[in-house]
Amino acid sequence: MQPYQQLQKVFKRLSQLQYLQRILQWDEAVMMPQGAGDFRAEALATLAQLLQKKLTSKKVGKLLATITNGDNLSSWDKANLAWMKKKYQRAVCIPSSLAYAATKAALASEQAWRKLRVQNDWQAFLPFLEKTFNYQKEIAKRQADQLQLDPYDALLDEYAPNFNQARIDKVFSTLKNTLPNLIQKIVSKQENFPHQPLSGCFPLEKQKTLGSELMQALGFDFNYGRLDSSHHPFSSGGSEDLRITTRYEENDVLKALYAICHETGHALYEYNLPRKWLNQPVGEIHSMAMHESQSLLIEMDVCRSFAFCRYLAAALEKYFGQQGMLSADNVYRLVTTVKPDYIRVDADEVTYPLHIILRYEIEKGLFSQEIMLKDLPAYWNELMQKYFNLSTHQNFTNGVMQDVHWAAGAFGYFPAYTLGRLIASQLFKTFAKQYPHYANDFQQGNFQTLRHWLNVNVCAYGSSLAIDDLLIKITGEDLNSHYFLTHINERYL
Amino acid sequence: MQPYQQLQKVFKRLSQLQYLQRILQWDEAVMMPQGAGDFRAEALATLAQLLQKKLTSKKVGKLLATITNGDNLSSWDKANLAWMKKKYQRAVCIPSSLAYAATKAALASEQAWRKLRVQNDWQAFLPFLEKTFNYQKEIAKRQADQLQLDPYDALLDEYAPNFNQARIDKVFSTLKNTLPNLIQKIVSKQENFPHQPLSGCFPLEKQKTLGSELMQALGFDFNYGRLDSSHHPFSSGGSEDLRITTRYEENDVLKALYAICHETGHALYEYNLPRKWLNQPVGEIHSMAMHESQSLLIEMDVCRSFAFCRYLAAALEKYFGQQGMLSADNVYRLVTTVKPDYIRVDADEVTYPLHIILRYEIEKGLFSQEIMLKDLPAYWNELMQKYFNLSTHQNFTNGVMQDVHWAAGAFGYFPAYTLGRLIASQLFKTFAKQYPHYANDFQQGNFQTLRHWLNVNVCAYGSSLAIDDLLIKITGEDLNSHYFLTHINERYL
Repeated sequence: MQPYQQLQKVFKRLSQLQYLQRILQWDEAVMMPQGAGDFRAEALATLAQLLQKKLTSKKVGKLLATITNGDNLSSWDKANLAWMKKKYQRAVCIPSSLAYAATKAALASEQAWRKLRVQNDWQAFLPFLEKTFNYQKEIAKRQADQLQLDPYDALLDEYAPNFNQARIDKVFSTLKNTLPNLIQKIVSKQENFPHQPLSGCFPLEKQKTLGSELMQALGFDFNYGRLDSSHHPFSSGGSEDLRITTRYEENDVLKALYAICHETGHALYEYNLPRKWLNQPVGEIHSMAMHESQSLLIEMDVCRSFAFCRYLAAALEKYFGQQGMLSADNVYRLVTTVKPDYIRVDADEVTYPLHIILRYEIEKGLFSQEIMLKDLPAYWNELMQKYFNLSTHQNFTNGVMQDVHWAAGAFGYFPAYTLGRLIASQLFKTFAKQYPHYANDFQQGNFQTLRHWLNVNVCAYGSSLAIDDLLIKITGEDLNSHYFLTHINERYL
Repeated sequence: MQPYQQLQKVFKRLSQLQYLQRILQWDEAVMMPQGAGDFRAEALATLAQLLQKKLTSKKVGKLLATITNGDNLSSWDKANLAWMKKKYQRAVCIPSSLAYAATKAALASEQAWRKLRVQNDWQAFLPFLEKTFNYQKEIAKRQADQLQLDPYDALLDEYAPNFNQARIDKVFSTLKNTLPNLIQKIVSKQENFPHQPLSGCFPLEKQKTLGSELMQALGFDFNYGRLDSSHHPFSSGGSEDLRITTRYEENDVLKALYAICHETGHALYEYNLPRKWLNQPVGEIHSMAMHESQSLLIEMDVCRSFAFCRYLAAALEKYFGQQGMLSADNVYRLVTTVKPDYIRVDADEVTYPLHIILRYEIEKGLFSQEIMLKDLPAYWNELMQKYFNLSTHQNFTNGVMQDVHWAAGAFGYFPAYTLGRLIASQLFKTFAKQYPHYANDFQQGNFQTLRHWLNVNVCAYGSSLAIDDLLIKITGEDLNSHYFLTHINERYL
C-alpha cells in the first residue's frame, strides 16, 4: 500500500474512534447518571490518551515524512494530506499523559460547573477552572512552539483556521465601533412597537413534538438523528448519527424552539458533508467557525425572518391554540427584540457580538497574563458595565459562570461564533440575491431551495477550502462584517 | 515499576475502555437512530480491534512471561494475575483483523435480527447469521487450539469458566429426566387453582415509575444508574453507571416489571463488586453464569415468592387502583403459572431449563457439524415437539429467531442461564436457612438483609473464587441441581 493510502486507513480509524468519543461525551451530558462522573471522566481521559498515541505514533510520523509534496495527488487528496499533517503537528507536541490529564480535568470542571453554576458558587468552582486552564495553557504553549505561533493564536487557529488575533481584532473593532450606536437606535425604535410578552403554559411534550416538526421541515431526518434535552443545548455525533439537544421551559416555548433551530443548523451541516470522503479529514467539518455559520444562518437569517415567523405562528397555533401573543407579528417582535442583557445564548443577534468580544478580550488578557483567573468576575463586571451598562457584581450564575466553554477547556472557541455569524450573513445575502422570492417558500415551511443551495455551495466542499477561499468562490469577497451590518440595518432600522 | 504493577496499569485501562464499549453498545441498542447502524458497527469493530491489539501487545506477553509463579503475591493478586493470563490466552490467538470482522458481522446480524424477527423472515436473516456463526466458529477453533479444549467447550468456558460439555451434560441430564414429569404434575395441580388473566390498560409511564420504585426497594441507586426500554431487556454499563432496560406492554404490567426485577439483579451484582479492585480482572463479574445467578435469584427466588407478591400487589394497587386480578393471591398465581410455551424469556421457572437444554443441544450439533445452520428451524421444531409438544413450523418469530444471542454472536452463552439458576437456588436456600423469617421482610418490601447477605457472600468475592469453590464455601456443596429441584417441589407441589 502507498504511504498516502496507509495514512487514509489510519485516519479513517481515528475518525471512527472520534465519532465514538463524541457519542460518549453526548451520553455523559445527556444520559449518564450523575454518580458516574469520576468513573467516566477517567475512562474518557484514557480514550483521549489512546487516540493521542495513535495519531502521534512513529508510523504516522514516518508516513507523513515520506510524502514530501504529494504532487501526484488530486486537489482533494492534497487538502486531505494537509489536514493530516496539521492534526499530527498539533498533537505530536502534546505528551499523551498531558492529553489524559487535560481531558480528565476538563470533564471534572464541566461536571462541577453543572452543579456550582446554579448555586452561584464561584469560589468552589475556581480551583476546577484553574486546573483546566493551566492544562490548556500548557497545551497552547506547546502548540505555539510547534506551529510558530503565539499561544492564544494557536488555540484560535483550532476553531477558526488561519484566523489570529491580528485578523480578529480588525474584524471585531469594526463591530465594536458600530454596534453600540446601532443598538441605541434600534432600542429607541422598538420602544414604539413593543411586543406582547408570552404568557401561559406550554407543555414540554408538545414543545418537543413541535420542535421535531420544525427540524424535519428544515431538512432533518430522524432516521439519522435524535433530539434530547441537556443543561446547555449542543450538537454532536456523526454524519449518520446526529445528536442535538435543547432545554425546555414551560412558560417560554420560543427558547427551546430557537435552540432547536440553531442546533438543527449544525446537524444539517454534518449530515450533508460529502459522503465520498466520510471518515477522512477533508470530509469532516471544516472548523467550528464554519459550523457556527451553518447554525446561525438557520437560526438568525432563516428562523428569525418574518416569513419564518408566519410559518411558526401557524405551527404554534396548531399545538397551543389561539393565543394573542402567538400571532406572526408578535412572534417576530419577540424574536427580534434587541435588548442588552446578561446571557449570551439568549441574546438577540445585534448585541450578541458584544458578548463574544467581551469573552475574547478576557481570553486575550488571560493568555497574555494581564488577567489572573481569580480576577475574572471583576473583569467580567467591568466589561459588562462598559458594553451593556449592566452589573454582574456577585452574580456569577448569569455572569462569568454562564457558559460551559471555559469549564470544558474550550479557550479560544468564542470568536468562532461571531466569525460564523459574519460568514452566515455573507452566505445568506448571496443566496437571497440568487433566489429573491425565498420568503414565499419560508412562510410555507418550505426550505428545500435554501437547503439545496447550502449543500451544493458549502457542505459539499467539506474541509477542502479555507474559509476565505470558500467565501470568495461563493460571494466574491473574503470574510468581512459588511454583509452582517447591512443585514442588521435592513432588518432593524 | 514491577511487572505485575505494569500489568495492573494496562488492565485498568483496558477495563475502562471496555466500560466505554459497553456504554456504546447500550447506546446502539437503546438510543441510536436506526440509520446509523452500519456506521456504528464499523466504528465499534474498529474499537474492538484496538482493544484486541492492546490486550495482545508484545509488552503484555513479555510481562506475563516474566512473572512465572507470582509467589510473592497475595491470593487476590494471584487470582488477578491468573485472569490476566486467561484473557491474554483467549485473545492472543485471534488476529485483530478477525476481531474486527467478527464484531462488525455480529452487529450487522443483530441489527438485521431486530428488523427481520418481527417480519418472521428467516430466509433474509440466514446469510447474516451464517457470517456471524462462521466467525465465531473460527474464533472457537483458534481458542480451542490455544487452550487445548474442544471448540464448543472453549466457548462455554467463556461464559461459565471450568464448565465443559461433559459437566453440563451431567447436570442437564438430571433436569431432563426430572422436569417433564414434574411439569405434568404441576400443570394438573394448577388446573384446580386457575389464575384470573390480567385485564385493563396499564399506562407505560406508571409502569416505569412503579418499576423504578421496585428497583429502589431491591437496592438500586438511581444516582448510579438508569432504566430505559429496548427490544430485548438487558443490563450493561459499569459498577457506577448501571444501565438496565425492559420492554413495556400496555395490557401486561407484569412482563415489564419482572424483566426489571431480573435486570436489577444483574445491576446489583455489578454495583456491589469490591471497589478496591475496580477496573482489575479480579474485581469484575466472575462470569455470565454468576451474573445470571444474581439476576435469577432476584427474579425467581425473591420476586416470584408469595411474600413478594403481597408487597407487589399493594404497590400495584397504589398505581392502578383496585382491580380483582391484582390481588396478592392472583399475582402469585400469575407469576408461578407453569405452562409449556414458545418464548424462553417469558417462560416459567419450571419449563425454563428445557428451553435452555433445547438450545444447548442445537449448539452442540452446530459445533460438531451434525447440524447445518440452514436446518436450524427444522431442528428447533423437532425439539419443541419433543420437550413441549408444540410446533414452530414456519413460526420463526417465536421459534428459532426469538433470541438475540446467536445473532449477536454469543454461541455458548445459553447454558449460563440454567447454571446460574442452579447457583441461585443453592445460594437462596442457604440464605433462607440462616434467615428463616425473611418472608416477613419481603412482604413489606424490605430486602436489606438479603442484599447484605449477597454482598458479603457473593459480590465481595468478585472473581477471586471459582464457582464451585464459592459454592462450597457458602453452601458446603459444589454446583448441583438438588437445591433447584427441591425448590420446585416445595413451591409447586
